[in-house]
Amino acid sequence: MNNTYGQLFRITTAGESHGKGLGVIIDGVPAGIKIDYDFIQNELTRRKPGQSKITTQRKEADEVQILSGVFIDEKTGTDKTTGTPIQMVIFNQDQKSKDYSHIAEKFRPSHADYTYHVKYDGYRDYRGGGRSSARETAARVAAGAIAKLALNQLNIDIKAYVSQAGSIKLDKPYTELDLSKIEDNIIRCPEPEIAEEMITMIDQTRKNRDTIGGVVSCVITGCPAGLGEPAFDKLHAELGKAMLSINAVKGFEYGSGFDGVAMYGSEHNDEFYTDENGNVRTKTNHSGGIQGGISNGQDIYFKTAFKPVATIMSDQESIDINGDKVVVAGKGRHDPCVVSRAVPIVEAMAAIVILDFYLRNKAVTL
Amino acid sequence: MNNTYGQLFRITTAGESHGKGLGVIIDGVPAGIKIDYDFIQNELTRRKPGQSKITTQRKEADEVQILSGVFIDEKTGTDKTTGTPIQMVIFNQDQKSKDYSHIAEKFRPSHADYTYHVKYDGYRDYRGGGRSSARETAARVAAGAIAKLALNQLNIDIKAYVSQAGSIKLDKPYTELDLSKIEDNIIRCPEPEIAEEMITMIDQTRKNRDTIGGVVSCVITGCPAGLGEPAFDKLHAELGKAMLSINAVKGFEYGSGFDGVAMYGSEHNDEFYTDENGNVRTKTNHSGGIQGGISNGQDIYFKTAFKPVATIMSDQESIDINGDKVVVAGKGRHDPCVVSRAVPIVEAMAAIVILDFYLRNKAVTL
Amino acid sequence: MNNTYGQLFRITTAGESHGKGLGVIIDGVPAGIKIDYDFIQNELTRRKPGQSKITTQRKEADEVQILSGVFIDEKTGTDKTTGTPIQMVIFNQDQKSKDYSHIAEKFRPSHADYTYHVKYDGYRDYRGGGRSSARETAARVAAGAIAKLALNQLNIDIKAYVSQAGSIKLDKPYTELDLSKIEDNIIRCPEPEIAEEMITMIDQTRKNRDTIGGVVSCVITGCPAGLGEPAFDKLHAELGKAMLSINAVKGFEYGSGFDGVAMYGSEHNDEFYTDENGNVRTKTNHSGGIQGGISNGQDIYFKTAFKPVATIMSDQESIDINGDKVVVAGKGRHDPCVVSRAVPIVEAMAAIVILDFYLRNKAVTL
Amino acid sequence: MNNTYGQLFRITTAGESHGKGLGVIIDGVPAGIKIDYDFIQNELTRRKPGQSKITTQRKEADEVQILSGVFIDEKTGTDKTTGTPIQMVIFNQDQKSKDYSHIAEKFRPSHADYTYHVKYDGYRDYRGGGRSSARETAARVAAGAIAKLALNQLNIDIKAYVSQAGSIKLDKPYTELDLSKIEDNIIRCPEPEIAEEMITMIDQTRKNRDTIGGVVSCVITGCPAGLGEPAFDKLHAELGKAMLSINAVKGFEYGSGFDGVAMYGSEHNDEFYTDENGNVRTKTNHSGGIQGGISNGQDIYFKTAFKPVATIMSDQESIDINGDKVVVAGKGRHDPCVVSRAVPIVEAMAAIVILDFYLRNKAVTL
Repeated sequence: MNNTYGQLFRITTAGESHGKGLGVIIDGVPAGIKIDYDFIQNELTRRKPGQSKITTQRKEADEVQILSGVFIDEKTGTDKTTGTPIQMVIFNQDQKSKDYSHIAEKFRPSHADYTYHVKYDGYRDYRGGGRSSARETAARVAAGAIAKLALNQLNIDIKAYVSQAGSIKLDKPYTELDLSKIEDNIIRCPEPEIAEEMITMIDQTRKNRDTIGGVVSCVITGCPAGLGEPAFDKLHAELGKAMLSINAVKGFEYGSGFDGVAMYGSEHNDEFYTDENGNVRTKTNHSGGIQGGISNGQDIYFKTAFKPVATIMSDQESIDINGDKVVVAGKGRHDPCVVSRAVPIVEAMAAIVILDFYLRNKAVTL
Repeated sequence: MNNTYGQLFRITTAGESHGKGLGVIIDGVPAGIKIDYDFIQNELTRRKPGQSKITTQRKEADEVQILSGVFIDEKTGTDKTTGTPIQMVIFNQDQKSKDYSHIAEKFRPSHADYTYHVKYDGYRDYRGGGRSSARETAARVAAGAIAKLALNQLNIDIKAYVSQAGSIKLDKPYTELDLSKIEDNIIRCPEPEIAEEMITMIDQTRKNRDTIGGVVSCVITGCPAGLGEPAFDKLHAELGKAMLSINAVKGFEYGSGFDGVAMYGSEHNDEFYTDENGNVRTKTNHSGGIQGGISNGQDIYFKTAFKPVATIMSDQESIDINGDKVVVAGKGRHDPCVVSRAVPIVEAMAAIVILDFYLRNKAVTL
Repeated sequence: MNNTYGQLFRITTAGESHGKGLGVIIDGVPAGIKIDYDFIQNELTRRKPGQSKITTQRKEADEVQILSGVFIDEKTGTDKTTGTPIQMVIFNQDQKSKDYSHIAEKFRPSHADYTYHVKYDGYRDYRGGGRSSARETAARVAAGAIAKLALNQLNIDIKAYVSQAGSIKLDKPYTELDLSKIEDNIIRCPEPEIAEEMITMIDQTRKNRDTIGGVVSCVITGCPAGLGEPAFDKLHAELGKAMLSINAVKGFEYGSGFDGVAMYGSEHNDEFYTDENGNVRTKTNHSGGIQGGISNGQDIYFKTAFKPVATIMSDQESIDINGDKVVVAGKGRHDPCVVSRAVPIVEAMAAIVILDFYLRNKAVTL
Repeated sequence: MNNTYGQLFRITTAGESHGKGLGVIIDGVPAGIKIDYDFIQNELTRRKPGQSKITTQRKEADEVQILSGVFIDEKTGTDKTTGTPIQMVIFNQDQKSKDYSHIAEKFRPSHADYTYHVKYDGYRDYRGGGRSSARETAARVAAGAIAKLALNQLNIDIKAYVSQAGSIKLDKPYTELDLSKIEDNIIRCPEPEIAEEMITMIDQTRKNRDTIGGVVSCVITGCPAGLGEPAFDKLHAELGKAMLSINAVKGFEYGSGFDGVAMYGSEHNDEFYTDENGNVRTKTNHSGGIQGGISNGQDIYFKTAFKPVATIMSDQESIDINGDKVVVAGKGRHDPCVVSRAVPIVEAMAAIVILDFYLRNKAVTL
């Protein structure tokens, strides 16, 4: 529903790139989740601009305030959720300083300027793309941090990493990677050599005043069997929607994905067995941990494709609101590639989806 | 919401593979849509089993009845929608005849038997996969036919076709294809030579008692600018969810998709211009007709990846509901490849998404 | 959402008074509910027309079929719900026989003919009021029967009765009534003398070719504390919406209701105590079992006011679709008072609300 | 959905009585609504505590900030809505100063302390009732002000007034009142003599350290025919839910309401006629402007009953979280009667409902 996502754990975001601030209200937060303020702020810091040479050099602290929904648990002396909605606000710092009048009436290529202009009858905050700016995802990361704190209590873990930048691919399956190394480099790729290649390439792209795309892979471990709904709200369908709703995303696949198309059923099917601990397992996991739209207890993994950032430093042809030809000048400070900053966003949206389905699954029996 | 899809044009489906019947209630149908009963039945016929040698040989007529929501318009003598919900029912014909007791307690590999068993605490109609059967999509196709009748009145057209079967790809962009030829062959691929190759390969796969995957491409023309919502309900995010909710789907991409990842922004950006008729156009269409989640008036196009059918004719190892090792025998009549029958399903879901967003967009101004 | 009610236990109804049939799809049915077909049919029989001299003399069997969502539980040999949606259909029997052409273009006073005509741009099934007919409530009663079967397993009981017909009131509080006697008479009032008075008055009203209103009271026992949501979805707010959504309802009050207005806080407040079994109780129950929108474990009780039936047997002035003055003739077979047939409808809607909140409440903690 | 209300114009509130602040995100705001900041603040001022001798003497400025969703319209030099969500925040001023430790573990009679305690597993902000405080309605009034600004542009007007306080009733129908006088006195009753009586009675009740209930009546003029949905979302059902969701509300009736029960159909039916301007009118309006759940273009009117405030200045018996008997002392500054402050809340919720249905009705035809 427009700016709301989720059925039971449900986030509603608001805010524009250069307005007074961003915010989110999270409804359906289970009571009793321990709040770790440092963790929440750190998630925002992983997403914030200016964090490395391969991201935009704009500086924003992205400090988050929690206005409601938590209260001290006197037994433990820590703040916990109370089951009432959590409102979080991130005030924008320098919203007055920027001058965006040069694009007020121009439609930047492959941005949302034109589509917002048509949809909203010309009423539009054009500064930095307004609501269409990826700045909106700061609110998602804040909400996702709450979801992650809940999932931690359930021993469900979510880790995303960059598996492709431009045409540089990390081709190994996630099972052969050391995911504890993701945060060791600025591109968030767990293989140091590939990471280095990616960083060099992105840096060169930036120097060329251009931008490039990439892929973020994500792995969810510890997810119990049974999450997801039979028909429309299949677990992977919601994960797909959640990822496709992130700015600049062009594709989503899970398990064997597009490559599974060329496989035979006899190769692709995941045979069940019972392991030494009596747990149901599958010998392979082309299903990506989801069968019939419902988690089967194996690892869930998926990929999300990001296009090159639309803002480039070269001049481009376009039109203005009157349909007249104009030149859009390349200027400002922008990301040459979004994937390193997209990693926490992918994780946040995945956490929101999984927690929502976890709660929904509680109502399946009396 | 589980078995309901859509916000304003909203379908709710019910029914199992071998129960008494399938059904759908469509709410939010605009009043005044002219009902063409032959068109609706024909859409179901495009999806039904037994239609060609490359589909399952099961025979089901899939005759649909409309129980409500339409009434004769005495001015024109034709039935039209009245704005009240349309209930459609497709009774199953031979639901008693099948014997499924051999799988009652076994989990077929890469089917939903296990996940349903866990989720629903062991209460499960195992016959033909029950609710997890792709038979559920008959109800979607019936609902999609109503959506298509509405979109026809708006001159919005949706056409899907098979662009890959196994590793045989139709590599041309849709703009170089003659989409009027899709229905000319049983695989629903508009290039006759490629179609022939695909058919031969699928037929051979069937003879090998195996199955194979494929890709369905879809093109939407005539869609006005402005459809889609800013944050979570981006047009492509809902299209993605709708496609990923179809049985056996593993991936979704739109516009440049996964290939767009390796492009530079300077190549990928779609520059705007005003054409000779004063219409806003883009020189290229890597955006796939959607910018910032909102349609821009250009053609919308996307691809959906289908895995190989899980039911194969060879024996497979698995476990039963007690966790004990069993063999699942290959038997019955099943599709060697689903993509030819998936074409009308993809179109139906796309039609439902587009009509829903069309109606939602009417509320954007007073 | 229009023709859908509920968040987790969610019903969607369809059907017109004289179309092919009525139907409902119930989504979110917990798995494992034992299906008692006789009970379900009996609930419909309590609502059906022609059941006594004080209801319409139209005869409709209202036989319900279940098409999906149940399956035999082989352990017990009984049918149980499977967690997938239940579709129920009630085919109309004599939909062709009636001639409604005399009202095709007239707006009957205090009916929905005019408002539907305006809303749906003139597309309207005018036969018997079409979708606006109280016949739609048959589908609600069918769905409510499923909810009651679930609540029975939770020991939650719902009983409604007629507490007023015209100006004849049953003034005793429910705690002084023997609710096991409700079904002992045709008006469904547990006090035999008052019941007799009501029946005589309604019968006389019918002979006068007129109609009269009434009040249905409802008591819910065994409801655990904790159901209901803090802000908008207060338990009594949803009960109120559910009751007000029934045809002909004009008012709703719970606990002390409108009479509570003239009480002082010192009289109205319900003091807590712990009873001999260690249960939390209140000394009085002006709260009607709900505090802050959440059930407190005491009995829930409320009243629903029904207006006189709009169809009367006398001629009335009105206008037609052109705005011209016409006479609407009194003819046909109609209820002189709806409350006896409304009793099972009130119970059905209450059951749906309570079960929905019961399921929602399961997601409040991890 | 818990803390969200509305389908297309949709508000989500957050915040506790003594937390950092209250907030609301409004989604689905039509683009192009002119923002009048003074009007919005004034609506909050009409609701705020400390406004007269018959309200609580607590002082809170209730200053509202708009963080998003509006932008300057350069053509007119005024701020207008942009169609993106509006986030509003009201920071609490003295949240640290209050000492509520005396009620931390006690359940105040007829408050929500006990039900929240049970529902949320003991995690609860007890200060001033936390989320259950009527302070939450400040966020509703802020959102309602936006709805009113939109309705103003459509010439739809909403006016509420106090029609009963304790047993003092204003018995005249609204058609005989001068509604421009509502704001002339502190009780917001348009008849000065009755107002005076009410004020004296409430003031005396306050001196008696007690509280009393009341009724707020509301009239909506200028509402076009066609708003409301056939089955569950009848216009009066949503108005009822919206009113019943306000703190302390015990009952709702519209049109003839509970009094309509004792009327005959021949008296109650509203005959249609066409007036001299060609408009469809009804001779009487027992329907309260709504037929079959859909507005008919006549005035809409309804009543909402409020119970006496639960906080009284006398000692009361109760129990604590261990079930042990305690005394709850009467202290603090509280309203002796809420109805004067409830007037803007009733208007706000009515405005939200009407605007939502106005937008929903746009999707009824293509």
